[in-house]
Amino acid sequence: MSFSLSESPNILLKIEYEGTDFVGWQRQADGPSIQSMIEDVLEYILERRVVLYASGRTDSGVHARSQYAMFRATSKYEPERWARMLNHKLPPTIRILYSKEMPSEFHAQKHVISKTYEYRVLNRKCASALDRGVHFYPGELDWQKIRESLPYFVGEKDFKAFQGAKSVVKTSVRKITRFDLTQLSSELFVFEVEGNGFLKQMVRNMVGTVLEIGEGRMLPSAIEGIIASRDRRRAGRTAPPRGLYLAEVVYPERYGLN
Amino acid sequence: MSFSLSESPNILLKIEYEGTDFVGWQRQADGPSIQSMIEDVLEYILERRVVLYASGRTDSGVHARSQYAMFRATSKYEPERWARMLNHKLPPTIRILYSKEMPSEFHAQKHVISKTYEYRVLNRKCASALDRGVHFYPGELDWQKIRESLPYFVGEKDFKAFQGAKSVVKTSVRKITRFDLTQLSSELFVFEVEGNGFLKQMVRNMVGTVLEIGEGRMLPSAIEGIIASRDRRRAGRTAPPRGLYLAEVVYPERYGLN
Repeated sequence: MSFSLSESPNILLKIEYEGTDFVGWQRQADGPSIQSMIEDVLEYILERRVVLYASGRTDSGVHARSQYAMFRATSKYEPERWARMLNHKLPPTIRILYSKEMPSEFHAQKHVISKTYEYRVLNRKCASALDRGVHFYPGELDWQKIRESLPYFVGEKDFKAFQGAKSVVKTSVRKITRFDLTQLSSELFVFEVEGNGFLKQMVRNMVGTVLEIGEGRMLPSAIEGIIASRDRRRAGRTAPPRGLYLAEVVYPERYGLN
Repeated sequence: MSFSLSESPNILLKIEYEGTDFVGWQRQADGPSIQSMIEDVLEYILERRVVLYASGRTDSGVHARSQYAMFRATSKYEPERWARMLNHKLPPTIRILYSKEMPSEFHAQKHVISKTYEYRVLNRKCASALDRGVHFYPGELDWQKIRESLPYFVGEKDFKAFQGAKSVVKTSVRKITRFDLTQLSSELFVFEVEGNGFLKQMVRNMVGTVLEIGEGRMLPSAIEGIIASRDRRRAGRTAPPRGLYLAEVVYPERYGLN
């Protein structure tokens, strides 16, 4: 008797990672990815290839506090044991926070309701010896102006002007429900942006643009015209990946994940 | 014409470091120390040996948000330039936050009024992929009991029971002015302890002991008897260095450092 793949238990992993040393979530030829690291350990344990499906990709160097990915596998192990078995073989910069069996119809990407990204900026004269997950910005910034620019992003809009190059998606319309700025100390600032989906490099392009507003290169109200233009050249530069975290992924309440 | 050493400008460095890869502050034969890394760059720049005097030592693996160290050197450089010159040659886990000239009589160790240490505990099932500077504690802890134990440490007391082995100091009496616990998230807890001075491994022994109280091995009030006993064997284990930070050093107000 054999099982078809769709009958195998649906195992969900909640994953935290420090993206510095990886080429991003997705398996690629040019270096180790989070996906390939975990899939390789799964293959080692199961003695066959399995594919991980994540809530979405993260770019090279981007971190996650809360990424979800699922795979289907019939095995002798309790679903909860996968976390410990994987952590035993994974590098310390990738941790499986837990593993659990999900209903067969659950899908880690298709069922995403919203995601929250966090972007951390260290605004002081000198880089940090202690924190590798921040964008070090030594220049002066008008944080009040930056704060004034954030509401212009909120709503359902066409974010084509904030989409990375070579991106192929059906529509560049996304709904941003929140774009907040919190000052954690005299020098540490954290952006939080929540939406129903994000285009390639969208958060980094949004942050890079509002930092230019903080430099005085544009007025906060310029965001309106940039969005309307749908022109990537009108927006600001792409902020570096090291300050970016996938911070939260929300699924329907019935799945009990949040 | 030549300058005597005492006439050379007194240069103070404010230093931040991630201690993971170092044998501690002090120069030692068995590996790279923060002191040796900085002294070696100073020697490279000045083409002669200089000695750094810190506010005090930190143990192997311990971090600092705010360490101070001074050296005397006559050079062609403005005092403020040392920070940039040193950072250019130092590893990214050691950063000079600033450099400045101090009055000739100022001494980085002798003029210390108080120090604050921070100890971070990650209390959850799984280690952190993102934060190397925490003590990962997977077991259950009664944080309310831990909180109740802290006031017993405050005051001028003989902390012999919390002194590391092979320590030679005149007196083990120290004054603790504050021992606080803050919960930063559902899983991250931070101790802050302020005092006029600390014995070898004193903070790590204090934290190790209150964690045993959180495990239910002792009552919070047991601290009184442990201190009175002056017996190291009565106190708890030594918490690991990776959660410990030298967080603040206070000097007399006239020096304008705080």
